[in-house]
Amino acid sequence: MSKITNYSLINMLMGASTKQGNDIAIKSRKIVKALIKDKTQHLTPEERSIVERIVHSTADPEYADLTKISGEFVKKSLESLKNGKDILTDINMVKAGINSYNGNVKCYINHEKTLKLTKKNNITRAAAAMQVAAVEEFDGIVVIGNSPTALLEVLNLYKNNKIKIQSVIGVPVGFVGAEESKEALHKTEIPHLITQGPKGGTPVAVAAINSLINLI
Amino acid sequence: MSKITNYSLINMLMGASTKQGNDIAIKSRKIVKALIKDKTQHLTPEERSIVERIVHSTADPEYADLTKISGEFVKKSLESLKNGKDILTDINMVKAGINSYNGNVKCYINHEKTLKLTKKNNITRAAAAMQVAAVEEFDGIVVIGNSPTALLEVLNLYKNNKIKIQSVIGVPVGFVGAEESKEALHKTEIPHLITQGPKGGTPVAVAAINSLINLI
Repeated sequence: MSKITNYSLINMLMGASTKQGNDIAIKSRKIVKALIKDKTQHLTPEERSIVERIVHSTADPEYADLTKISGEFVKKSLESLKNGKDILTDINMVKAGINSYNGNVKCYINHEKTLKLTKKNNITRAAAAMQVAAVEEFDGIVVIGNSPTALLEVLNLYKNNKIKIQSVIGVPVGFVGAEESKEALHKTEIPHLITQGPKGGTPVAVAAINSLINLI
Repeated sequence: MSKITNYSLINMLMGASTKQGNDIAIKSRKIVKALIKDKTQHLTPEERSIVERIVHSTADPEYADLTKISGEFVKKSLESLKNGKDILTDINMVKAGINSYNGNVKCYINHEKTLKLTKKNNITRAAAAMQVAAVEEFDGIVVIGNSPTALLEVLNLYKNNKIKIQSVIGVPVGFVGAEESKEALHKTEIPHLITQGPKGGTPVAVAAINSLINLI
């Protein structure tokens, strides 16, 4: 990009209205589409739009390779959202990114019961928050953007018929445990979206769920 | 990693207490240190700890190459935090990730005045939120994790002596405008941290500011 183009872009951005903000987003999505076109040809249009939004949000085309979506994921997730079922997040940062859903977005990480269960059961707060969700009769889409222990706890609760789950966005991040927790989800029959390897995190989780919300 | 190690790790994580959670974090930091050792040798210990936390939070070692920290950044930022000055974020997702600061963390993106200024001045909401911060006599560290227009507006306000800034964490993400806005910050004398290129985002911003908060 030439210096002149840079300055033009800065001038354009400096005066960017919300409409122009939308134009920038559209331009960005076009760039993303071109960048990952070859890697997303096997996907359905809905799956492709989810992967494009993840790459748009992270500016990291590698997510087109890393993102794996199970066959029933889009269908079950859209049903859940259309029926107004809840969304459960592991941390408040993920919750803060979900702005346009008419139903409830729940996060129990700072809940009184969570702090008690953390001590009582000698588990992490994020895992305890999943147990609290089960007790509170959660039913809907689980969105894990950070914690491998929360994801493993969800799988454990599901195996023991203690939680109702329509689908799981499982994209915890990190070099210890994240990859293994996502592999464990990938082996289940639960409709899911994961990112293979250590990478993932809040923006990936938020992009995936917001993309689904936009599709309803 | 062998399958046996995988299962051991899952068992370990499944029973992970908060103490074990901390052990996992320590193990992860050791992996990160080893991964980016060669790339961080030129940094001060404080700068190195910030870069390590960014890589830890994103599981993406490329951030060791992309993160650029200006000479006065750590000193000015720590002074600002020690003096209890405010932190300003562009979006609520970034604010939601800053949990352990005793001072104020402000975000005006949904503020009434912001919505008015957006229409009146024909600018983006994120840019208008920076104008509101200036009117509200903000003084402290600005943390931009998402919006190039917010970052450019901060630079504009600063140039016109309309806002007091101790330092800027400028890591907006995206293929349109993010890179240019960060380059513009990098050319100023404002103490700053940026990530070169399109990559950046909420976890990078949160890792950088939380790392500084831990250093005070």
